Amino acid sequence: MNELDLLKRLLPALPTNDSVVLGAGDDCAVMDLGLPDRWLLFKADAVVEGVHFLADTPPEKIGRKALARALSDIAAMAGTPTAALVTLGLPREFNPARIEAIYAGLGDCARQHGVAIAGGETTTNPGGVLLSIALLGWVAKDKCLRRAGAQPGDALFVTGELGGAIAGRHLDFEPRLAEARWLAAHGEAHAMIDLSDGLASDLRHLLAASGVGAELHAPAIPISRAARQAHRAAGSRKPPLLAALTDGEDFELLFTAPARGAVTLLDAWQKQFPQLPLKCIGRITAERRIILRDRDGVKPFPEHGYAHFA
Amino acid sequence: MNELDLLKRLLPALPTNDSVVLGAGDDCAVMDLGLPDRWLLFKADAVVEGVHFLADTPPEKIGRKALARALSDIAAMAGTPTAALVTLGLPREFNPARIEAIYAGLGDCARQHGVAIAGGETTTNPGGVLLSIALLGWVAKDKCLRRAGAQPGDALFVTGELGGAIAGRHLDFEPRLAEARWLAAHGEAHAMIDLSDGLASDLRHLLAASGVGAELHAPAIPISRAARQAHRAAGSRKPPLLAALTDGEDFELLFTAPARGAVTLLDAWQKQFPQLPLKCIGRITAERRIILRDRDGVKPFPEHGYAHFA
Repeated sequence: MNELDLLKRLLPALPTNDSVVLGAGDDCAVMDLGLPDRWLLFKADAVVEGVHFLADTPPEKIGRKALARALSDIAAMAGTPTAALVTLGLPREFNPARIEAIYAGLGDCARQHGVAIAGGETTTNPGGVLLSIALLGWVAKDKCLRRAGAQPGDALFVTGELGGAIAGRHLDFEPRLAEARWLAAHGEAHAMIDLSDGLASDLRHLLAASGVGAELHAPAIPISRAARQAHRAAGSRKPPLLAALTDGEDFELLFTAPARGAVTLLDAWQKQFPQLPLKCIGRITAERRIILRDRDGVKPFPEHGYAHFA
Repeated sequence: MNELDLLKRLLPALPTNDSVVLGAGDDCAVMDLGLPDRWLLFKADAVVEGVHFLADTPPEKIGRKALARALSDIAAMAGTPTAALVTLGLPREFNPARIEAIYAGLGDCARQHGVAIAGGETTTNPGGVLLSIALLGWVAKDKCLRRAGAQPGDALFVTGELGGAIAGRHLDFEPRLAEARWLAAHGEAHAMIDLSDGLASDLRHLLAASGVGAELHAPAIPISRAARQAHRAAGSRKPPLLAALTDGEDFELLFTAPARGAVTLLDAWQKQFPQLPLKCIGRITAERRIILRDRDGVKPFPEHGYAHFA
């Protein structure tokens, strides 16, 4: 049993109460604390040495990544981040200058997004440095975008370029906060998620929450230069399209919106965010599975066994 | 440099914003989200294998402790807990039944206190199991008790019995939520903190935040049976009074209130909470240091070198 399956089994048995609008199963928990027009967004996330960063990762980038990952989850619900707490796990021996640089990166990222660091704890973590972020944000009740809500016939959109983030973008990505709020303000999107586990996995989360399927148009999927370079540099690596579909840590937005407004949306987006590509990569279907269409026709996209696929 | 000194240096440089009423330096962060009469309390805390629990600790108690520690911080500000997120760090090999039991203990504790578990993440943590809790609560603006606020002449009170928690109470303690709210409702207390690092350390935090000192009356300090037993069982261990002063993880409440109302308060407390002792253990002084008074007279209580003390 993997971690995710375990959590899926354990979380539903845990208690809830009236404050929780939306618990486990979306990018953030959504809380109603009694404000007439706003919900609170609540997110926790951790990065761990040897898993999300390495001993030689520039420490400023570690702090930045820790916060930016959680910011991306606030973006996925079209929210605005407010304040964070940082729990820092340190091995028994640590280099104070490294920790200071981690906090400098974290502080810069917080400042850039108007987020307060409202406190922090340290604890010993014998296995290595760990940063756990708890983040609060808010969203207008009528602008909150969830994973649920995609409808058959919707067009499927993705921002940016996908795959190969491990070459560097996993440390430097920009959480798409302004873009998500713009989308919500324009009222086009039906459902949204941020890409942390890879397009194929995260699309599956969105489809499951919405009770629908999708047909992906393979040639439309935006493949990053990093994914192409990685393939050229090491021929044995997975093909660029597969990298774009399955590499993690893109932290782009994946969302659906009515197909009839797709061209207008793409035009308006390009005027608003000329630096950030937005691509229509397929459509939502009633049948609950993922199909990939390319010049050879259509084939189902298997849940496991990506290695056999491309 | 130890972790705490490092954090003290780093946290003030981090950004804040208008939502933060009280940032680093109290038991919880206090946030103003626009509710007319309430503040939000925001806390993050982690427990780590080999530090806060061991490989053979009953797993239900691990989950319980993780949440109860954070609840104790909500209690320290006289708040009411609302909802928590759980981040679970797991080594690459783990026993699903153990994790399930950790969540069962966590869930029971949440249920007991009306707390929703609003979501959770898992991550790999190569060094061992880690649980990081992010907890939200609330407090009426005019009932929030802080570390700051103690006044010279105040009496100093502590709940329960102190020392030797490592023998078992560190897993079984009850966060003093109802007691703290009762105190705040009765308007007696000036300043409060929960005891996590040991009476001497936590008193020092309260005094520093309030800009005052204290005289402790040694014979009044409530020493737990566990601290006495530990001393009898191993003569080389620190004397029971020193254990009560310096052992951590008591998770009792330490607070100050006007001395003139002390007898009335102790009487009312005994009627309200007959099972939980409340002791007056000293008084707040203008001079910013801790003095210990016993039958031999008074002596300063040193910040370091407890081993030389008793």
